[in-house]
Amino acid sequence: MTIETVSLNRAYGGTQGVYKHASRSTGTDMTFSVFVPPQGANAKLPVVWYLSGLTCTHANVTEKGEFRKACAELGLIFVAPDTSPRGADVPGDPDKSYDFGLGAGFYVDATQEPYARNYRMWSYVTEELPALVAAQFPVDASRQSILGHSMGGHGALTVALNYPQRYRAASAFAPIVAPAQVPWGVKALSGYLGGDRMTWRKHDAVALIEDGARFPDLLVDVGDADPFLTQQLQPERLEHACEKAGIPLTLRRQPGYDHSYYFISTFMEDHLRWHAERLKA
Amino acid sequence: MTIETVSLNRAYGGTQGVYKHASRSTGTDMTFSVFVPPQGANAKLPVVWYLSGLTCTHANVTEKGEFRKACAELGLIFVAPDTSPRGADVPGDPDKSYDFGLGAGFYVDATQEPYARNYRMWSYVTEELPALVAAQFPVDASRQSILGHSMGGHGALTVALNYPQRYRAASAFAPIVAPAQVPWGVKALSGYLGGDRMTWRKHDAVALIEDGARFPDLLVDVGDADPFLTQQLQPERLEHACEKAGIPLTLRRQPGYDHSYYFISTFMEDHLRWHAERLKA
Repeated sequence: MTIETVSLNRAYGGTQGVYKHASRSTGTDMTFSVFVPPQGANAKLPVVWYLSGLTCTHANVTEKGEFRKACAELGLIFVAPDTSPRGADVPGDPDKSYDFGLGAGFYVDATQEPYARNYRMWSYVTEELPALVAAQFPVDASRQSILGHSMGGHGALTVALNYPQRYRAASAFAPIVAPAQVPWGVKALSGYLGGDRMTWRKHDAVALIEDGARFPDLLVDVGDADPFLTQQLQPERLEHACEKAGIPLTLRRQPGYDHSYYFISTFMEDHLRWHAERLKA
Repeated sequence: MTIETVSLNRAYGGTQGVYKHASRSTGTDMTFSVFVPPQGANAKLPVVWYLSGLTCTHANVTEKGEFRKACAELGLIFVAPDTSPRGADVPGDPDKSYDFGLGAGFYVDATQEPYARNYRMWSYVTEELPALVAAQFPVDASRQSILGHSMGGHGALTVALNYPQRYRAASAFAPIVAPAQVPWGVKALSGYLGGDRMTWRKHDAVALIEDGARFPDLLVDVGDADPFLTQQLQPERLEHACEKAGIPLTLRRQPGYDHSYYFISTFMEDHLRWHAERLKA
């Protein structure tokens, strides 16, 4: 397990790094970013995983997410993976389709050709990268949490609901909560997993909850001016599922906010404080 | 004076806008960004001008500057102009030269051909854009301040030293303080203003102070790992000039920080608090 340092910048007394490694999950090089706050010089720290949305790389949240100040105050390591494998041999053309293929891995292990070989983002973000980060950074692996945006909100919720013992907190900005029931999700899950909808259920937060998955509590922010709110996000589906299952959900409809990093950055500190309370409990 | 709205996003309870207008100073369309915090709905607010560095547009600080939280708390409007005229007819090729021409206007009114017609960033940032912003946004024009980064730190210091009555505070991140004495500055000032070095002095912070310009106090942060520190920035020249002139200068050499927005964003809040104290005094 070796990693190559792409860049290192001092920020808020800590270090914002970008790293590259050869991934055995995806069969490609993968890039990710890690912020280590100043406390990381002397202690093993909790780690917050951030999964990004369609079209993004690690760079969007790293540059625009405004997470470093709160992480430096709260003593949190912040890790941001890419959203898909990339490379000349990887199928998927972002010029033809922004919501499938490159930049749109949907945090599943594809079973369908020609995607099955590279599109293994589930294994990557739940197994390979956590092991790599634990080995290379001052991480207390017993204290992990996860959040994400849009497709990455879907990723965060489904990862947390599949591994409720591993993550002490989970939250999302404008997540896709029921991919099996919305266009982005149907396209991605059928393309990567095929037509058997039973195989989709472990990658659908609402279906997971219907099937018995539980998590101590969840925080979700959506903007009421988000252009994807009614067709793709449908947070009320999560609201109903959580209510029925008895999962405490804090769902906030933020007035005037859209789907952008202007929205995410505004509420990032709130989410990190929510995570820190649960990581340090 | 009409402006076209390019984008509007809710952020930190306020509005981050990007605007375009036909500039009479530059003879081109110019793009700029304005953040209006929530207090702008009910009151005229102080305005902070931010001038950007080489290769930047309004977008760099708008996306990476992490200024909105502090502006929302302190009730400050934050305006970020572009760094040069742009357009098919504007001379200057950024592929050939990142430090002259497009993205490198150096905040002067060029007198040399072929630049004299469009490269009038001094008039643009000191006259045209302030009038436009005062007319279109809830600005208290009696309370203005200015800051900038690198080439834009040079711009902020020289604008403030030329108009000490107009700006109540001035600060800079990694500024070029003595352009007549460093490679970036010599290239720009000779290219835009010609060989008569007397014409350069009103665009050189150290020369301005030597010639009698004064400002109540100045705040400057530099990173001690900034790769441009010793050849292009030379903050000790400003230190000596201020000491001789009796201008209180707070010059902080920040350990481990470089020239990037990771450095700027870390200290942005400090600068905005410095500005707010003086804008509200």
